[in-house]
Amino acid sequence: MTEVDGGFARVGIVGLGLIGGSIGLATRRACPDAEIVGIDLDAAAVRGAVACGAAHRASADIAEVRDADLIVLAAPVRANLVALDLVCRHARPSAIVTDVGSTKRVIVDAARSLGRLVAFVGGHPLAGASHGGIAHARADLFAGRPWVLTPDGEDADGAVGRVEAFVGALGARPHRMTAEEHDRVMACVSHLPQVVSSALMHVAGGRAGEAGLALAGEGLADTTRLADSPGDIWRDICETNADHIRPALLQLITTLATLADDLPAANLDSLFAAARSWRSKMRLT
Amino acid sequence: MTEVDGGFARVGIVGLGLIGGSIGLATRRACPDAEIVGIDLDAAAVRGAVACGAAHRASADIAEVRDADLIVLAAPVRANLVALDLVCRHARPSAIVTDVGSTKRVIVDAARSLGRLVAFVGGHPLAGASHGGIAHARADLFAGRPWVLTPDGEDADGAVGRVEAFVGALGARPHRMTAEEHDRVMACVSHLPQVVSSALMHVAGGRAGEAGLALAGEGLADTTRLADSPGDIWRDICETNADHIRPALLQLITTLATLADDLPAANLDSLFAAARSWRSKMRLT
Repeated sequence: MTEVDGGFARVGIVGLGLIGGSIGLATRRACPDAEIVGIDLDAAAVRGAVACGAAHRASADIAEVRDADLIVLAAPVRANLVALDLVCRHARPSAIVTDVGSTKRVIVDAARSLGRLVAFVGGHPLAGASHGGIAHARADLFAGRPWVLTPDGEDADGAVGRVEAFVGALGARPHRMTAEEHDRVMACVSHLPQVVSSALMHVAGGRAGEAGLALAGEGLADTTRLADSPGDIWRDICETNADHIRPALLQLITTLATLADDLPAANLDSLFAAARSWRSKMRLT
Repeated sequence: MTEVDGGFARVGIVGLGLIGGSIGLATRRACPDAEIVGIDLDAAAVRGAVACGAAHRASADIAEVRDADLIVLAAPVRANLVALDLVCRHARPSAIVTDVGSTKRVIVDAARSLGRLVAFVGGHPLAGASHGGIAHARADLFAGRPWVLTPDGEDADGAVGRVEAFVGALGARPHRMTAEEHDRVMACVSHLPQVVSSALMHVAGGRAGEAGLALAGEGLADTTRLADSPGDIWRDICETNADHIRPALLQLITTLATLADDLPAANLDSLFAAARSWRSKMRLT
């Protein structure tokens, strides 16, 4: 029987930013007997994680995951791919590896190509905050939030159930789907809004100038909040999900182009009504 | 010398929604000796305005503005154009008329065509709330917010200075600019975000479906908050500012199309950096 928290005695976390740090803090609270080992190439993150209690010990040496029975890859998407390879050289044969990356097909494919070297379960906690970094890590970051898991192939070790129990213990709501379906949905509800938000800020700022922006209200501020996101993380995401982002972007372009053609007689009413209807569904679910 | 609150003894407010109601409440607080007369075709708004204290008396009959020395048109853009015409038939020759519409050229032109029938000063308080209607009116809605005034031609009566003093007394920061400049800037910082937000919600919802939207986070919620705006108000705005909205929309389409072409190798870094830079300027000003 799977233990309620997955039954991991030693948890390794590779990448001690907002998500990795919050996983450490949440694990500490949910699994007080588990030892948490943190890994990060940045010395400040290593010190910060130990200081705030997100890890019992931390280091820049990824070989330190050698005794962990759960290893969480919590770096950006491309760095997780590198880390997956390194972790496999050091981890116990019985270790379970999961990740928290924003795209899932690329890392699931990479893990599959490693064969039975590790039991890998792709993951993506749908949680975040305006500010990144270990300094903003919170034990309750995942409370009530969906945490997607993307099982791949047979699960002889029961790894999926154990990871599911673990993320449930952290307060999240585990949600199984395929890596393909995850990437398709995230292209629409996360990656498209990000790209649009940055493009909108770029165009609105360039046309209105600083004096014009001084007259902007909450509407522009909300619509462009994502434009503050770190570019390097998003480059990885756009690179590893381009085939799903592109058609969504093209559909948006077509929608906007139809409006631009028809202004002022555009069929705004039907667009606005459809948008409001979808938005009410978003809030109700 | 202009009195600190403009020195209006009787203020007429035509349109008793969020903005009109809040003007009433703020006037009551800032100018306790002024009598406030509210006008709205909706009986519930008339009752609500008197009940909450936004007006001393209210009615559906626009002739009731006959004794006002300041008349504020606070209905949607098209309704304000109709109201301007009616108000001119009933107002005192000495009355000053202003409005709060989101586009300024059309009503400024309409007032100019009426000649010296009224002293008209176009206005636009840059304030709002998630929910409209008299029930959400607040005396402090304009506190610290810019309130654009668009003087047109000579100001023999000192009307501009008096309206400026009045909106300052309501807590707003008066900001003079031409109607043309106002409409150009608002196309970028307000109208474009609105159209994009609705189009994004329409596309993301249609592609992801309800199950996909259940996995959406704060990013999509913020980016599409404007998609909840009432469509009829925005139809008026898009109709009366199409010539400024269209080029902004076309520039955004070009920016998005370039990204779509280049994914995954798009020059995301420079777009993201430019967008972040503009956003920091928005918050600093």
